Amino acid sequence: MSDHIVSAYSDELDKLSSDIMRMGGIVETMIADSCRALSINDPVLAREVIARDPQVDVIEAEVEKQIVSLIARRQPMGHDLRMILSALKTSNELERIGDLSKNIAKRALRLDDFVSAEMRNAILRMSRPVARQLNEVLDAYASSNSALAKNVWSSDDDIDQHYNAVFREMVTYLIEDPRRISAGAHMLFIAKNLERIGDHCTNIAEFVYYQAVGEYLSTMERPKLDQV
Amino acid sequence: MSDHIVSAYSDELDKLSSDIMRMGGIVETMIADSCRALSINDPVLAREVIARDPQVDVIEAEVEKQIVSLIARRQPMGHDLRMILSALKTSNELERIGDLSKNIAKRALRLDDFVSAEMRNAILRMSRPVARQLNEVLDAYASSNSALAKNVWSSDDDIDQHYNAVFREMVTYLIEDPRRISAGAHMLFIAKNLERIGDHCTNIAEFVYYQAVGEYLSTMERPKLDQV
Repeated sequence: MSDHIVSAYSDELDKLSSDIMRMGGIVETMIADSCRALSINDPVLAREVIARDPQVDVIEAEVEKQIVSLIARRQPMGHDLRMILSALKTSNELERIGDLSKNIAKRALRLDDFVSAEMRNAILRMSRPVARQLNEVLDAYASSNSALAKNVWSSDDDIDQHYNAVFREMVTYLIEDPRRISAGAHMLFIAKNLERIGDHCTNIAEFVYYQAVGEYLSTMERPKLDQV
Repeated sequence: MSDHIVSAYSDELDKLSSDIMRMGGIVETMIADSCRALSINDPVLAREVIARDPQVDVIEAEVEKQIVSLIARRQPMGHDLRMILSALKTSNELERIGDLSKNIAKRALRLDDFVSAEMRNAILRMSRPVARQLNEVLDAYASSNSALAKNVWSSDDDIDQHYNAVFREMVTYLIEDPRRISAGAHMLFIAKNLERIGDHCTNIAEFVYYQAVGEYLSTMERPKLDQV
């Protein structure tokens, strides 16, 4: 292959990575802002989060088109093929994280007056390690850093423990005042959404590790701590 | 290409399809049996469902290996490439459906005595249209039937309406007797899991349609009815 063609190919791979990072950036703001909107009861911010979701979907569709075209024209193998399939799966995970954040924002808009400040704070507390996971896994993706990816992958247990604590706390609030049930159900789903965002980060960490090292992180080593 | 090579390639594509159908078959039993275990309170059946999940994971990993090898060796384009990428994404959706069914079975094992027969029945009722969706979308996949795929895709609203009804019903049961809160939270997550299984069927329907027709089913035409 001439240098010119190699360089165009490498530009295409770079474009793919940078699109993934752009998706990651938007999704990061969606998690943080949906939980902030919830904690300070800011419907304007919640609606902004919801309005951001179609951007993520557009980039995902664009990434998929690039990948189909790359495979058809460049016939990638080995490391390049791993990298391209990992980009496809990562964009899929990010799209789901965007969806879950949008869902948190939608629920924030539907909460009634029976939500206590403690309930709102419990969610905000839980959102911080989740946002950190996404931030770190995006760093790992950008730098193909397998050690960092493994680190994200092993610390998912923290989020599971947070989730279990929030779950118990919510049930206590509900029992204290049954009028909180509708709001409480929303809050449980919000906590579950955050826990699932953590799982999606773990999935991305697995792709990054596989892409960098060529081996799977065995799921045997990491016991899941969320109870159901 | 010689006939011999073409036929080996076509055998490989058939193997891919048949692995997807095998995954689909296992996952179908997991949905039906997890909801039956829940409705008749059968812990043995629930444990059987949980034990089936690793089989699904193994086939998914196998499908992914086949796809990487197919792309690297066969350099597929056009319809074949669409078909292969659609198999990758379908196996991913089926793996998630298996996970969600396993989660229903795990929750069925953790329910306490405060679950009423009405609550169990509400879930069983909701599971039927979901199981039908999966059955139809697998038929559509096997026969590359775009009309059937579109049909599955448009009838997801029924499941969303079921989910909204179950949600309201659960909240009523919880308000009647606050001791039901812990069981009720599990039941809400179970209903949500079924609704998400319906969403995964819709995703598969989109892949089947795209693969058969080469165009995307516009998400504009299908309003989501689940409230959050």
